[in-house]
Amino acid sequence: MTNRDELESMCKRRGFLWQSAEIYGGEAGFYDYGHLGAELLDNWKREWKKFFLGLSEDYHLIYTPNIHPYRVLESSGHVDQFSDVMIRCDRCGSSFRGDHVIEAETGEDAEWMDKDEIGDKIQESALSCPDCGGSFAQPEDFNMMFEVALGPTGERSGFLRPETAQGVYLNFRREFRALRKKMPMGLATIGSAFRNEISPRQGVYRLREFRQAELQIFFIPGIHEEVFENRFEEIKNMPVRIKRGDKTKEVLLGDIEDVPPFYLYHLGKMYEYHTDVMGFDPQRIRFRELSEEEKAFYNKIHFDLEFKFDTLGGWKEINGLHYRGDHDLKQHQKGSNTKLSVSTEEGRKIPHVIELSFGVDRNIWALLEDGYNSDDDRDWLDIPPKLAPRQVAVFPLVKKDGLLERSREVYEILDDEFRTHWEKTGSIGKRYARNDEVGTRYCVTIDYDTMDDDSVTIRDVESKKQIRVSIDEASGILKELIECEKRFDDHSNTEG
Amino acid sequence: MTNRDELESMCKRRGFLWQSAEIYGGEAGFYDYGHLGAELLDNWKREWKKFFLGLSEDYHLIYTPNIHPYRVLESSGHVDQFSDVMIRCDRCGSSFRGDHVIEAETGEDAEWMDKDEIGDKIQESALSCPDCGGSFAQPEDFNMMFEVALGPTGERSGFLRPETAQGVYLNFRREFRALRKKMPMGLATIGSAFRNEISPRQGVYRLREFRQAELQIFFIPGIHEEVFENRFEEIKNMPVRIKRGDKTKEVLLGDIEDVPPFYLYHLGKMYEYHTDVMGFDPQRIRFRELSEEEKAFYNKIHFDLEFKFDTLGGWKEINGLHYRGDHDLKQHQKGSNTKLSVSTEEGRKIPHVIELSFGVDRNIWALLEDGYNSDDDRDWLDIPPKLAPRQVAVFPLVKKDGLLERSREVYEILDDEFRTHWEKTGSIGKRYARNDEVGTRYCVTIDYDTMDDDSVTIRDVESKKQIRVSIDEASGILKELIECEKRFDDHSNTEG
Repeated sequence: MTNRDELESMCKRRGFLWQSAEIYGGEAGFYDYGHLGAELLDNWKREWKKFFLGLSEDYHLIYTPNIHPYRVLESSGHVDQFSDVMIRCDRCGSSFRGDHVIEAETGEDAEWMDKDEIGDKIQESALSCPDCGGSFAQPEDFNMMFEVALGPTGERSGFLRPETAQGVYLNFRREFRALRKKMPMGLATIGSAFRNEISPRQGVYRLREFRQAELQIFFIPGIHEEVFENRFEEIKNMPVRIKRGDKTKEVLLGDIEDVPPFYLYHLGKMYEYHTDVMGFDPQRIRFRELSEEEKAFYNKIHFDLEFKFDTLGGWKEINGLHYRGDHDLKQHQKGSNTKLSVSTEEGRKIPHVIELSFGVDRNIWALLEDGYNSDDDRDWLDIPPKLAPRQVAVFPLVKKDGLLERSREVYEILDDEFRTHWEKTGSIGKRYARNDEVGTRYCVTIDYDTMDDDSVTIRDVESKKQIRVSIDEASGILKELIECEKRFDDHSNTEG
Repeated sequence: MTNRDELESMCKRRGFLWQSAEIYGGEAGFYDYGHLGAELLDNWKREWKKFFLGLSEDYHLIYTPNIHPYRVLESSGHVDQFSDVMIRCDRCGSSFRGDHVIEAETGEDAEWMDKDEIGDKIQESALSCPDCGGSFAQPEDFNMMFEVALGPTGERSGFLRPETAQGVYLNFRREFRALRKKMPMGLATIGSAFRNEISPRQGVYRLREFRQAELQIFFIPGIHEEVFENRFEEIKNMPVRIKRGDKTKEVLLGDIEDVPPFYLYHLGKMYEYHTDVMGFDPQRIRFRELSEEEKAFYNKIHFDLEFKFDTLGGWKEINGLHYRGDHDLKQHQKGSNTKLSVSTEEGRKIPHVIELSFGVDRNIWALLEDGYNSDDDRDWLDIPPKLAPRQVAVFPLVKKDGLLERSREVYEILDDEFRTHWEKTGSIGKRYARNDEVGTRYCVTIDYDTMDDDSVTIRDVESKKQIRVSIDEASGILKELIECEKRFDDHSNTEG
């Protein structure tokens, strides 16, 4: 079991992440990424882009602003509907999300309840303020968007985007033309989204400003589904854990009969990203189908990908796959009075959207938790080498007899190819410990033998095993270990 | 001369950039980056990070939120002082920046004028509303920050950050510890900044939401300046164009005697980034020293880097180098009541900051303008291969006789190493034209000879020269051309 306090303490101390504006006492719902966290984030984004845009030549990334005009979010339905039910204590004035209070007190899932149902439940169960025990006022709908006044007289209004998807829908028409009218067409974006959470908590899990990586795939059902069906082979024998209603079971994706292949294909690709790129233990991820009450009315099919967090009390959503139908483009066509249909052999049609939505900060936290280990001797972070902020560290065994200078030379060579760190202070044991803690994948040590025969040791963070190789080979071997994710043993064996 | 309309039209049509929320009629001051623009932006950020973090092992990137709490921007001085002088027409109600109206009407530089000076000038020159000819009301100070209410009762207030720098200052203390107290320490960040411009205009040049890439270097004057002095050799013989007061001249950086070496060193590195990485014509860039009236009171030394825009009417700031002294950390020490000094051999001192500040969108626009060319035959974009969204395109001369399939095989090989595009529709001439227009650096064509002898042609976007090479060599030669920025001629010669 990973201890949340220990992991948070490491993240703060070593430069991964911590609450924003710390010197001012911190601001709830906002987090900073320090020098190792930012590198991890950049690596995650790069691999996400490579994997998901790699699914088709017709998938591309675009960037749109954080601020959207009022009428965009009016058309999308967010102005009217993007709210949580808030309850406020009559005595102390504290505000809470109604569903969270109900869940905490009764164990009942209340996310789908509306204002009246939450009001009834509170009465029925005689719930009172968790802070002071006071009674609650009538629940209210609270819109979670941050509004901003635009222009010198504030005559125009806008919102910080509550999801990155809307900016993509606005650009469907222009990109469809620029990309020469190919379909399925995918438009991804990675960026911030903003939700004025009533009571942000649970570290980076529920933030007021967070990051999303989303891929919107536009297609016409019945015409382009074939493209995905043709790739069904790739995922059909993939075993996944899936929760539908109360039942969780392990099945092959190809055996699920009541979900269309185009949807299952994308479930498979999301799963593959987590196991193959992020290196997650398959025991820690599952898909969960949302019930009719839980899912947004425009989502025709909705499974979340959940990760089993030790630090956050169990299974929790980190990503979702949303078949949004033609809802979004239809709304914007109406709102903007601009034709968003495309011509097909069956006449003009509004494309449908399947959305792959990733909560980036949640993925990063899951990655840190999944990789964090402790035993009696040490703490270490086991992150796949492509994602690790530091891939290689180089040390001299001692600073004298030319070892310092030689280690610096080796560092210069390796730093051209890998994210490399050079360290000379403290004992060799302390340097291993410091690097293990932040997940430096391989430590290269220069010792007295190096001065004789130009050999160095390479040590793996996970197994602590070492191999001895010549300096000339080191770069090639590290490249194989890092890029091909070869197991260390393949090389130990050759060496042994 | 690059024509602004033509360049903007290409950018819209081909997927670089355009005004946001286009289908809703567009939103002033906001721009979207399409699929080629986003790739260009990502490449620019990667190269910026590589170049500037490459200056020292003690320079790192961090990420902080777009929203800062009220008290952070109160301490920094932005709440009181971050304003422009606004004038409003009494008749039609249009608002303008006072300095812009004065500059447009009288040609006089008015950016440094305060509210009263602008009022006097308007009276004196009898200026009237550019829209309707009406007279102006008294000028007002207009704070350019976007305010947002945080939390369910809006009891807390925050602002969208007007610059990325403040988030870095807030993290100085934590990072100084995590990075083991080394100095000079550099903390960079790349992200959005927000200014509620009174009248946004000039395309991406003046946006309400824009991107900054900033590097803050912390050091103690007199103690750490030596580090930069030791590197002075690298830049001392660099010829730069520099404007001080009314005089512009070309000088060697090392010959400037009244600016300290640590500052000149960073001017040199900024210059080098523009010529060597971005490939700018040195005739189009210059440094300009800001006068006492123009520069912020806390900036001890301030030169802007200006680019000569055809599309925006001449020399305009794209970046700045700001020696901010100890102003920022002092203010936050006071505001947060947290000690931000560090211990030195001369007692505790508050570090000083030199800030390298890049306007990312302005750099992208300059890059597009600098690269955009037209002659009677064609339009083409000459962007350095490392930055180009598409590095390589692969075509079959015709689609029959197996050429289509062979071209696809070659594409698959090259796509592993380069940002590669495969195109089969239209004539070969049209494909060259389409790729030239978006700056695809090298076009590889599969023709009938390929089927005989496995050779292909590689054509350079700039010179239109072609070389013929074997498929086996193609990848290696492209790699040299792209990564080492070898000139095409080196290979033509070997071939010829």
